[in-house]
Amino acid sequence: MPNSPATSAPNPLNVRLARQIEFIVETDRLKEIFRQTLNTRSRRAENDAEHSWALCLLVITLAEHANFPQLDLLRVLKMVIVHDLVEIDAGDTFAYDTKNMADQHARESVAADRIFGLLPADQPAEMRALWDEFEARATPEAKFAAAVDRFHPMLLNCRTEGAAWRKHGVTSDRVLARNAHIAEGSAALWTYAQHMVAAAVEAGHLAK
Amino acid sequence: MPNSPATSAPNPLNVRLARQIEFIVETDRLKEIFRQTLNTRSRRAENDAEHSWALCLLVITLAEHANFPQLDLLRVLKMVIVHDLVEIDAGDTFAYDTKNMADQHARESVAADRIFGLLPADQPAEMRALWDEFEARATPEAKFAAAVDRFHPMLLNCRTEGAAWRKHGVTSDRVLARNAHIAEGSAALWTYAQHMVAAAVEAGHLAK
Repeated sequence: MPNSPATSAPNPLNVRLARQIEFIVETDRLKEIFRQTLNTRSRRAENDAEHSWALCLLVITLAEHANFPQLDLLRVLKMVIVHDLVEIDAGDTFAYDTKNMADQHARESVAADRIFGLLPADQPAEMRALWDEFEARATPEAKFAAAVDRFHPMLLNCRTEGAAWRKHGVTSDRVLARNAHIAEGSAALWTYAQHMVAAAVEAGHLAK
Repeated sequence: MPNSPATSAPNPLNVRLARQIEFIVETDRLKEIFRQTLNTRSRRAENDAEHSWALCLLVITLAEHANFPQLDLLRVLKMVIVHDLVEIDAGDTFAYDTKNMADQHARESVAADRIFGLLPADQPAEMRALWDEFEARATPEAKFAAAVDRFHPMLLNCRTEGAAWRKHGVTSDRVLARNAHIAEGSAALWTYAQHMVAAAVEAGHLAK
């Protein structure tokens, strides 16, 4: 349904805040971007807003397992909070969808320009830098953020009898190859993830 | 649907991490706790996980509008990430439901003990301290976290033609009284909120 401008009522005293609020309202669309992964209880598809919150909770709960003792947790959180906003325009690309992954970054980069560009002039650069850092996976903060972003869907898949994997015919070797960079952010999480995959294969929830 | 223990497969090398993962799986229930507020696009009820993510984005986007120049943003984010976990057991209490608000804190306190208690022995205390700080609204960080927690539902209500307010017969004086403490966290947000309420009344989306 369309957003209703009748009640937008920007405070004339604060044009800057009004513009930031319009950015917030636009990003409400993240709740309607659905992923392949199912939530553990309702078994409905998880959306990107829920996913982003779940990563935040993983970050603050599991920070001790990062490979890096001196992690800037605030920057990790900022990255996971904004990392999927580009999917408002570009849509979710399933981690094993090699066809759509080919131009994924190009599509998402255009989306980043538009969505972060809704903010007042000084703010898009910081948001874009956070997203670029997340995508590049070069810093400790980005490596840990990327690790939880890969680990959590694996966890949900394992706790829903491999529903998304089975639906798309994904095999364990592909799961391990696609998610191996978890080890760059957290050796402990990667060890745990490998055990999960082995158990999923054993339980018949993931093809070998 | 029940969670499937067959694939939980705790890594025997890391009992601590396995326990943290069980906490994460339990908190997946937050996605099924629905609020009275509607999302702006689908017009379905917002859930607590989406709400918590939205608050995170508000915090990092609007931090400059806090009343306090020296805000510990990491602590504000930690508070909003965990602030509604108690509702997994206690359910969502609508902001204008005076009957259920009477024992809300007592119910949520029991929930906090159980849910944070799933974590390894040293972690519940930090999570509980974050939740207690949020509830007490005494520190600058808690005041700003509480401000965005009140502001965002008002914003969604204003952008959905006052759907939740009209459904429950809420009037503008109650909205203003219930949310006035936004001013303690951000004078700018409270000024904006008052303009929103006035516009909602003028548009016929909120009773006077």
